[in-house]
Amino acid sequence: MATGHTDPQRRQRILAATLDHIAAEGVAGVSHRKIAARADVPLGSMTYHFTGIDDLLREAFTGFADHIVRVFEEHLDAAGDTEQARRAAVDLIHAIAEGPQRDLVLAQELYTLAARRPEYRELTGTWMRRSRDLLQRHFDADTARQLDALIEGLALHQALDTTPHDRDLTIEAVRRITTA
Amino acid sequence: MATGHTDPQRRQRILAATLDHIAAEGVAGVSHRKIAARADVPLGSMTYHFTGIDDLLREAFTGFADHIVRVFEEHLDAAGDTEQARRAAVDLIHAIAEGPQRDLVLAQELYTLAARRPEYRELTGTWMRRSRDLLQRHFDADTARQLDALIEGLALHQALDTTPHDRDLTIEAVRRITTA
Repeated sequence: MATGHTDPQRRQRILAATLDHIAAEGVAGVSHRKIAARADVPLGSMTYHFTGIDDLLREAFTGFADHIVRVFEEHLDAAGDTEQARRAAVDLIHAIAEGPQRDLVLAQELYTLAARRPEYRELTGTWMRRSRDLLQRHFDADTARQLDALIEGLALHQALDTTPHDRDLTIEAVRRITTA
Repeated sequence: MATGHTDPQRRQRILAATLDHIAAEGVAGVSHRKIAARADVPLGSMTYHFTGIDDLLREAFTGFADHIVRVFEEHLDAAGDTEQARRAAVDLIHAIAEGPQRDLVLAQELYTLAARRPEYRELTGTWMRRSRDLLQRHFDADTARQLDALIEGLALHQALDTTPHDRDLTIEAVRRITTA
């Protein structure tokens, strides 16, 4: 097993432990000491790999955004025409809403952080641009932006409602927002 | 000044202090000790007025939801026909997105709590039902549900994007989602 500062696994372990910690206890509790313990690395590794907590949070959430963008891609890439792209968007909404609770919590933690501290909106802004770019392979720019917001709203409401809507409503909403 | 356990102001002061604390530092840091200090009440008041932290969070967030539902009402009540209701929805989206950062943070804190702990989804579920009920004064039930999700998604993206969309895009999105 490789050890020491140059172990590339160590940086990845720290980032994975950071997301685990945020999913379990929230951004507020992130500290070098807690993350080092969770990642099972020496405390000195934290400052070797990251310039501080902000750098750590940025890198960890960027990795999380990469993961969700891949979920978008997996759904949208196979669509060959507009009708298939609409169906892919519907599947995506339900995949997000009914997917791992961990992803839902991490997304909300990032939004809360960006809501409280505008310097983190670079992260949410970049994430939204990447989602829109994927949607723009199938829809015009304005429609992609509207659809991206609808995906967000429907997935969030589906996940946090005690009487969630059914798939037919999602199908109809996607049809409406993609019809100029 | 009224004092003692029966002072009705005291309960309200505790709830206001709880929301202030959540807006500043997040749900994770809420404790009887911290809230009592912020509200300037004796520690014993906390357990007199609330059965525990969960009860305190529930009551505080219910008060916050009441506030946002009033913002919905203020915008939607004056609308006399469907076209005016659409304009009211557009105004509402921009009022939420460009409104106090405190409201944005508190909404995200509640969503994060409900994402992590399903027993809090009664709060988000009730809030969504109240919003939909207001929208149903102007739109059919399915349209109200779709529009409510769109309002959520567009306001959130507008608030957290570094290149937010303009009002014309909101107008077009609301028109599309309310057109069967």
